[in-house]
Amino acid sequence: MTFQKPNIPKGTRDFLPEEMIKRNYIFNTIRKVFEKYAYLPIETPSMENLSTLMGKYGEEGDRLLFKILNSGDFITGVNFQEGTPNQLAPKICEKGLRYDLTVPFARFVVQHRDQLTFPFKRYQMQPVWRADRPQKGRYREFYQCDVDVIGTKSLLQEIELLQITYEIFETFNIPILIKINHRKILSGIAEIIGCPEKIIDICVAMDKIDKIGKENVFAELREREISEEAIIKIAPFFDLSDKNDTKISFLEQFFENNEIGKEGVRELKTVLAICQKIGICEPELDITLARGLNYYTGAIFEVKAVNVAMGSISGGGRYDDLTGIFGLKDMSGVGISYGAERIYDILNEHNLFPNEIGTPVKALLINFGEAEQLYALKALVELRKNNIASEIYPDPIKIGKQMTYANAKQIPYVIISGEEEIKESLFTLKNMQTGEQTKTTLQKIVEFLSI
Amino acid sequence: MTFQKPNIPKGTRDFLPEEMIKRNYIFNTIRKVFEKYAYLPIETPSMENLSTLMGKYGEEGDRLLFKILNSGDFITGVNFQEGTPNQLAPKICEKGLRYDLTVPFARFVVQHRDQLTFPFKRYQMQPVWRADRPQKGRYREFYQCDVDVIGTKSLLQEIELLQITYEIFETFNIPILIKINHRKILSGIAEIIGCPEKIIDICVAMDKIDKIGKENVFAELREREISEEAIIKIAPFFDLSDKNDTKISFLEQFFENNEIGKEGVRELKTVLAICQKIGICEPELDITLARGLNYYTGAIFEVKAVNVAMGSISGGGRYDDLTGIFGLKDMSGVGISYGAERIYDILNEHNLFPNEIGTPVKALLINFGEAEQLYALKALVELRKNNIASEIYPDPIKIGKQMTYANAKQIPYVIISGEEEIKESLFTLKNMQTGEQTKTTLQKIVEFLSI
Repeated sequence: MTFQKPNIPKGTRDFLPEEMIKRNYIFNTIRKVFEKYAYLPIETPSMENLSTLMGKYGEEGDRLLFKILNSGDFITGVNFQEGTPNQLAPKICEKGLRYDLTVPFARFVVQHRDQLTFPFKRYQMQPVWRADRPQKGRYREFYQCDVDVIGTKSLLQEIELLQITYEIFETFNIPILIKINHRKILSGIAEIIGCPEKIIDICVAMDKIDKIGKENVFAELREREISEEAIIKIAPFFDLSDKNDTKISFLEQFFENNEIGKEGVRELKTVLAICQKIGICEPELDITLARGLNYYTGAIFEVKAVNVAMGSISGGGRYDDLTGIFGLKDMSGVGISYGAERIYDILNEHNLFPNEIGTPVKALLINFGEAEQLYALKALVELRKNNIASEIYPDPIKIGKQMTYANAKQIPYVIISGEEEIKESLFTLKNMQTGEQTKTTLQKIVEFLSI
Repeated sequence: MTFQKPNIPKGTRDFLPEEMIKRNYIFNTIRKVFEKYAYLPIETPSMENLSTLMGKYGEEGDRLLFKILNSGDFITGVNFQEGTPNQLAPKICEKGLRYDLTVPFARFVVQHRDQLTFPFKRYQMQPVWRADRPQKGRYREFYQCDVDVIGTKSLLQEIELLQITYEIFETFNIPILIKINHRKILSGIAEIIGCPEKIIDICVAMDKIDKIGKENVFAELREREISEEAIIKIAPFFDLSDKNDTKISFLEQFFENNEIGKEGVRELKTVLAICQKIGICEPELDITLARGLNYYTGAIFEVKAVNVAMGSISGGGRYDDLTGIFGLKDMSGVGISYGAERIYDILNEHNLFPNEIGTPVKALLINFGEAEQLYALKALVELRKNNIASEIYPDPIKIGKQMTYANAKQIPYVIISGEEEIKESLFTLKNMQTGEQTKTTLQKIVEFLSI
């Protein structure tokens, strides 16, 4: 006979129970911290109108959106001879899969503004889809865990996001370094050196200082057509010590006559001072941190795992006009996003998943066949009544094979009730790790497994 | 300025915090029961190859699949002049959104068979998508909660699914009626009356007995071209009492010379007998229950909420060859699916959501401004260290407005630390429901809110 070889689209994944249990540990840990900090859950649909998504992620982003073919007759009225695929796609697709959680959140806030309490603190943990070229660690469907507060300019929210970040990674036992910068510092630098449109080029080049050295950074800046005068102005940045205080002092002087830069420094200084006073580890000020810049207007964060060769595992920042595009002005917000997939990889590679998150099943009852079954089934009802996750092997196959099933499923205890046990109204409890066996009452087993 | 009116595709929904908390209660309750019965979680990608999905749900199903436009150049090599939309769609779309959890599960089992332990007991709670015409209670994106065991023919699994179903709805406080039937009983009836291809027509007509009466059912059967002879053979079914025993006795006699019908009755009899012996409420045998029949080969279940005017809230059955299409034969399985959306509607309409699932936030700290802030921030660190979900209002606005925020978010306690409290190193705890205020130590507040 012919049959289909089972397969899934490239860049997507199936999750088996072992992975699911680990992934749920990650999501639950993050969720608990979010809720402790008083953020509430929301969800948005997987599909958004393409008009909501298009133009929000740049040209590259538009290309990477998964578009959903209109149902029914998508052909009539469309001239397929005319236009590029990119131009034709929106004519036959009204909807697309969400690309991130930020734009849908902005849309959500505007759409439901009359039902929400502001400042609105929300978290959202849902998959996003990108038609990226799949490669190691990059998927076409992956989860984002976002936390945002919208409707206040208070810097206490920046502090809160730092606290949340430290607490999450402390729970995971992952040492991290948080880098912080401010969009207004970058704008100030751009203004002073006189090329505001080149700010990203400058950041990209400056970011390479540790890898290629000062002279090569200068060479790259020249290649990117930054003037000698500008390079001279930037040069002192590279000789600063690593200390936040030194950097802040330097920047205060640098921005003496630049209002926007000054404001950025003032805000960061406030954040760092409160961190010190309430005992939070200070993030490291890094003036090369830019994170794309598309909508950030205030503080910018990036989190890296210490001693792990991997990009950032989390990042975010403040935006003053995310909801403007949907018609709601003056809604300042700040948020941060955690990458569940990268956290998974770190926990896995460094054996940081706690042992106790293994199989939730505590006991397997051996099936001895129809005559003995009822005795075991009644015990099983009792175990489950006491919230003990347990099961009976469905068929009366050889006991050795039933034990193999228990081991494969990492079930720690097996409960045996053969002819002998039934006569005595007892059960034999076998510890699958030590092999130890005890014949005892069901009551005792319930008590023991309830711990 | 021009801006986009925010909107979502028809048939999809946003979930606000209040709804999310209720939905999570449903999912968590179901998940806990699944895990107690030793089912393990899996997840499959939202997109499957269209070749995996097409032809599995009938012609109507193929039409209702959401198809994803191929990335990049989807035009070259496609002749848009030739073929209907249904014929052209697969040429420009390789992928589709999953339509249910059953077909992806079958694909999953075959694809990962070497990594799984059989019998494989899995649960899966994920959204599915259907391009159905949206209407009240019917959405284009909705969650399914499926539980299945595959790799055993043991009837103990039918029993287990009944146990799970009763336990889930007992936890929800929703009284239910489970109806049961057997595919082989239906096949037996079809064989005896001599029109196997008309079995669904017969079931549909027979199902109306309560609404339209015996004579009208007969009329409808005649309309559907069922022979008089066949109708005479069926007639006695309508005069049976409601008792399972009576029905079983009748069917045993009816199937005296029909092997397949006999086997169906024997299996159901076994299931019902074990239910009785271990104290599970017997499901009601209903020989008109058919549930589409597409892949069921054994027992068929359907669950209805008692005294609620709504279709079934859950259903399932045994299938012997779900994985055959993907090349793996002899994999009998049985499963049941719970409709989260309908459960939500019942719990909501009948006020069955428990009170304690409300806001997880326990306390709001009032913000008195920069001078007093630090005192409150330090207290907040302490509260959260003790796992008390809490927050500070981010801006020092009027206290009345901060209280309004607490009420809107249903936060039960407000903690006040103004000049006076700071002087005494104390805090005022206000119960937002009674208005009662107590000035006390942080330690006492932590103890009180930890309960």
